Amino acid sequence: MKKEDRVLEFLRAAGKAYVSGEKISERLNVSRAYVWKEIMALRRLGYRIEAHPHEGYRLVGIPDRLFPDEIARDLGTRRVGRQILSYKEIGSTNDAAFRLGEQGVGEGVSVFAEHQKKGRGRMGRSWVCPKGKGVLVSILLRPILPPVEVSKMTLMAAVSVVRAVRQATGLKLGIKWPNDILAGGRKVCGILTEMSAELDRVNFVVVGIGINVNASARELPPGATSLKTLLGKKISRVEFARALLREIDRDYERLIRGQFGKLAGEWEEHSVTSGKHVIVRTIGRKLEGVAAGIDADGALWIRRDDGLQEKVLAGDVEHLR
Amino acid sequence: MKKEDRVLEFLRAAGKAYVSGEKISERLNVSRAYVWKEIMALRRLGYRIEAHPHEGYRLVGIPDRLFPDEIARDLGTRRVGRQILSYKEIGSTNDAAFRLGEQGVGEGVSVFAEHQKKGRGRMGRSWVCPKGKGVLVSILLRPILPPVEVSKMTLMAAVSVVRAVRQATGLKLGIKWPNDILAGGRKVCGILTEMSAELDRVNFVVVGIGINVNASARELPPGATSLKTLLGKKISRVEFARALLREIDRDYERLIRGQFGKLAGEWEEHSVTSGKHVIVRTIGRKLEGVAAGIDADGALWIRRDDGLQEKVLAGDVEHLR
Repeated sequence: MKKEDRVLEFLRAAGKAYVSGEKISERLNVSRAYVWKEIMALRRLGYRIEAHPHEGYRLVGIPDRLFPDEIARDLGTRRVGRQILSYKEIGSTNDAAFRLGEQGVGEGVSVFAEHQKKGRGRMGRSWVCPKGKGVLVSILLRPILPPVEVSKMTLMAAVSVVRAVRQATGLKLGIKWPNDILAGGRKVCGILTEMSAELDRVNFVVVGIGINVNASARELPPGATSLKTLLGKKISRVEFARALLREIDRDYERLIRGQFGKLAGEWEEHSVTSGKHVIVRTIGRKLEGVAAGIDADGALWIRRDDGLQEKVLAGDVEHLR
Repeated sequence: MKKEDRVLEFLRAAGKAYVSGEKISERLNVSRAYVWKEIMALRRLGYRIEAHPHEGYRLVGIPDRLFPDEIARDLGTRRVGRQILSYKEIGSTNDAAFRLGEQGVGEGVSVFAEHQKKGRGRMGRSWVCPKGKGVLVSILLRPILPPVEVSKMTLMAAVSVVRAVRQATGLKLGIKWPNDILAGGRKVCGILTEMSAELDRVNFVVVGIGINVNASARELPPGATSLKTLLGKKISRVEFARALLREIDRDYERLIRGQFGKLAGEWEEHSVTSGKHVIVRTIGRKLEGVAAGIDADGALWIRRDDGLQEKVLAGDVEHLR
């Protein structure tokens, strides 16, 4: 642990009690001046630390920032979030995680950002989230999968997001195939899965998740909403980020153990696409019919009006009346 | 054109005739000393330039090196080889082309190398080619394809290689699905296709081709052979590289115009897999039967002993008796 983290840990361990600067300096074997300097530094980072002339210091609030150390606290995951990076500003978290993948970094590394300058959505579309109000994270994973099965990763992430939101807020969100998370028809979260692959197998996958957490209605584009808007109050982004990493860790474990069937079952429970009359657009192709559900490979089956069934692995879905 | 290239061009234009240093210096408006210096520099690169006391200089041989300017001469392609890079030594040409792809470099850029320190084959296997004896090139392409159709790119490259070899040497090679080029059961060429992709569409594809051109039998691993061994003489690697880029350019044009059917037809003509009893191994799966041929998506169809037909998009094929 770094020296400055030790001051924070000391305050944290004291809970709601005050601890004197003298006690901290004694226990950590540092000068009183050093303690005071660290308290000031922590305050600059946004930690709210009360000072009482006789009692000493007390930690009363942590900043609304996605600091790696905060997210990593008691995380307890096996793979996801084993290493956490967090940027105040970045081009795109997916690009950053992709570069780490190319450099051979191990799976589970999670790249957070408060703001993306070139946030991307599917098909080269841009993705915008108000600065400091969302949870934007890209996770590098190295599943042993052929490229055609990578859609499983997106479906997995959708299930993880829905569960994490339920835990953190009680809200029940719906999944629009393949990768939009909705509430009342409005988008709360987008997922962008990218891969580096050979024909036979994936080298690595980056699962990028962007969730509108604390943005207010007027900060969001039409058709979007946020957890805060839905819930009527702000939620802790750090706690939500932690819940999210845990759920993804759990679901990824299931996926690599060959239990995609369970995930697919959960996906169907949350699906707002299944049973709908839809138009699916893929490269050079348009398909209309009733969405029948996903299969063991994560493909969406469409029952066309002429009775034929066709499957699609990826595409844009429009829900019709 | 760079100044030093102009001296070379001047010599080239003169064909078999001598040109005096004086004439070169006058026409190019450079000093006699500069001309002499450039002649020496060209010789160091391996250009054979005869000097005659009264007649002047004459170009009698170009080096056996994959210089971009040599490959690009009269190339006349539309996309492939629009930009050519050539390394004496590199980690892997696929890695280099992949990085260019990520940096947004336009399609067609072709990365050659005389030697790869970390040459890669499929499934993370290593690929070795004697230094300066092969043609190793990785081509960055940006087809608008969903990831499941990227196997088309490999089949395309195999067809291009077979045609380029036929043109340059008259040799008729066979294609073992999906990406080995054989002569008499020995491997002449390997193809490694890698991609960066979303679920819906490919961001870019790198087609890496490694051909044993002038290696002698004792320089090659067991099971491998070279064009030189097959032909009984060396061939010009530059000319072969040029032929290869032209054929890929032509086939890629066909592919993006939706004429994969034509390529598939050519592929079948050269296939040594179709009709064979085979075992195909993919991730977590083994399939045995008779290879029936490829379909419009580039998948190989296997007729199993129980009569069922199954298709595979990628995998290892073992030809049985």
